[in-house]
Amino acid sequence: DSKLKVFTLNSNPELAKEIAANIGVELGKSSVTKFSDGEIQINIEESIRGCDVYVIQSTCEPGNQHLMELLIMIDALKRASARSINVVMPYYGYARQDRKARAREPITAKLISDLLQTAGSTRVITLDLHAPQIQGFFDIPVDQLVGVPILSKYWKEKNLDDVVVVSPDHGGVTRARNLADRLKAPIAIIDKRRPRPNVAEVMNIVGNIEGRTAILIDDIIDTAGTITLGANALIENGAKEVYACCTHPVLSGPAMERIQNSKIKELVVTNSIPLQEEKKIDKVVQLSVAPLISEAIIRVHERQSVSVLFD
Amino acid sequence: DSKLKVFTLNSNPELAKEIAANIGVELGKSSVTKFSDGEIQINIEESIRGCDVYVIQSTCEPGNQHLMELLIMIDALKRASARSINVVMPYYGYARQDRKARAREPITAKLISDLLQTAGSTRVITLDLHAPQIQGFFDIPVDQLVGVPILSKYWKEKNLDDVVVVSPDHGGVTRARNLADRLKAPIAIIDKRRPRPNVAEVMNIVGNIEGRTAILIDDIIDTAGTITLGANALIENGAKEVYACCTHPVLSGPAMERIQNSKIKELVVTNSIPLQEEKKIDKVVQLSVAPLISEAIIRVHERQSVSVLFD
Ligand SMILES: Nc1ncnc2c1ncn2[C@@H]1O[C@H](COP(=O)(O)O)[C@@H](O)[C@H]1O
Ligand SMILES: Nc1ncnc2c1ncn2[C@@H]1O[C@H](COP(=O)(O)O)[C@@H](O)[C@H]1O
Repeated sequence: DSKLKVFTLNSNPELAKEIAANIGVELGKSSVTKFSDGEIQINIEESIRGCDVYVIQSTCEPGNQHLMELLIMIDALKRASARSINVVMPYYGYARQDRKARAREPITAKLISDLLQTAGSTRVITLDLHAPQIQGFFDIPVDQLVGVPILSKYWKEKNLDDVVVVSPDHGGVTRARNLADRLKAPIAIIDKRRPRPNVAEVMNIVGNIEGRTAILIDDIIDTAGTITLGANALIENGAKEVYACCTHPVLSGPAMERIQNSKIKELVVTNSIPLQEEKKIDKVVQLSVAPLISEAIIRVHERQSVSVLFD
Repeated sequence: DSKLKVFTLNSNPELAKEIAANIGVELGKSSVTKFSDGEIQINIEESIRGCDVYVIQSTCEPGNQHLMELLIMIDALKRASARSINVVMPYYGYARQDRKARAREPITAKLISDLLQTAGSTRVITLDLHAPQIQGFFDIPVDQLVGVPILSKYWKEKNLDDVVVVSPDHGGVTRARNLADRLKAPIAIIDKRRPRPNVAEVMNIVGNIEGRTAILIDDIIDTAGTITLGANALIENGAKEVYACCTHPVLSGPAMERIQNSKIKELVVTNSIPLQEEKKIDKVVQLSVAPLISEAIIRVHERQSVSVLFD
């Protein structure tokens, strides 16, 4: 009944184009530029009155800039009488600041949810939140999509022998279990511990990796310390080869150098965050989440469950 | 009764130091840094439980970064049980986006007020809002200080002869009138108009400037187009000399080159926005708003009226 419109901001224009093409609509006409002093200027160049609007924006680096673009766009859409303002955030920045680990810390992941709602967002569609609890920070519907089916499809097609799926830490075991089930493979866990303070960490591997092809999986790879140390520990402990994958390729600071110099044969990521040119190296394979997100948008718009997309 | 604490973020650390010294407190201990991926990390390193906290931050360039620092700091203060969270924003960024001038524009100045309140701010102290209506965007108390007394003190001490205070456009006449009253000088107005579309603007000057020393006044000088064209028009129309002043030296893009090459003898600004090194040229004089803001903070804390500060 109500018209579906897809708008992009500056974080993921290529992904947004793919999504609009999949859905069969033109991307909404808008421009997001900067005034001379760096303040964001947004112009929506077509009527969206009464429409269901989907705005594609990851809050990846520069995250504060991308977040402000999103908030200002939501404000403009609200004042232009959109019927619903659906924020499609493939990567939810600040998700790691999701609790007070020490005294007087902010909980920025909650702040972001409050800001999105205050600006006027009526729904959020996102992918692999760092902690599923972040859904509870919102008082509006949140559809959390999962990246594992996309990654597992790739590994199935690659058809590696004697696979073991490895979680680089305790926090990621559920995700590793999910991938392992899909690949009909066993799991292993890298169990880091520090025997005494100021003594180097020991990488203890729980599970059998001897002579096997290990696939490491994480949600975010940021500076790539965990994943590359893990990969090297797997080889030292007898794994035949090591592959790695994640949903969100943050890849900041020393990440690319570490990956290049590590024992990881191939790193598979999604385009929830686009890769800058210098990150498009041979070892890195990027898979598109556009089919998944397009399907989710269509299902949300047609009031159908999106949970089937997790299978 | 309740303890007063002053914290700074990254926009105006020098101003914050001056303010804390004036009030007679140490600056609160905190660190505002970035994670490897550019996300803001804030640590408050002393207890602020039950305290009245004043956070000094202008949302000048990089405005989105400074705004996010502020919002995250407010969130951390709120969760650390501050009794009140008083945002001291000498420069309120995005103030020019204060109305829908065209269809489907955002009203970012209102969005900012909503974001500050959502994060947990309980009061805002600011200086020369671009439009006084922005006070009405808030549902918490806003104390708006004015810069004219600081500027007028400077001009009085300079003791120029035959002064005329000039507003560079219609919007600034009230401000020019205020300065003129303090200097016991007449006013003039630069009346720009375009005789026909696509014909250059004519700078018509309303008021007598012949042989006089003109002082141009504006709230914000951004790219400095208005003020430098105005200054040159004043000289062409017979003014003896031209000085200029403003509260907020945004000075972006071509501003410094334009000022350097203009007929402006001296430009007087405040430190609501700090000047980067390359902007500290001979022609530019910067006055501190620290005494004004310190006094305002003390008066707010002691539940006294701040309106006496406007005299
Ligand atoms: N952008 C970031 N980069 C690195 N660490 C972060 C970031 N944001 C939050 N953290 C920290 O990461 C930790 C949480 O990560 P995790 O234990 O994987 O959930 C907390 O100590 C956070 O302070
Ligand atoms: N940061 C900015 N730099 C330049 N112009 C702006 C900025 N923010 C808003 N504007 C525009 O400035 C105009 C309002 O300025 P004014 O007429 O002086 O109140 C509006 O058309 C705004 O779209």
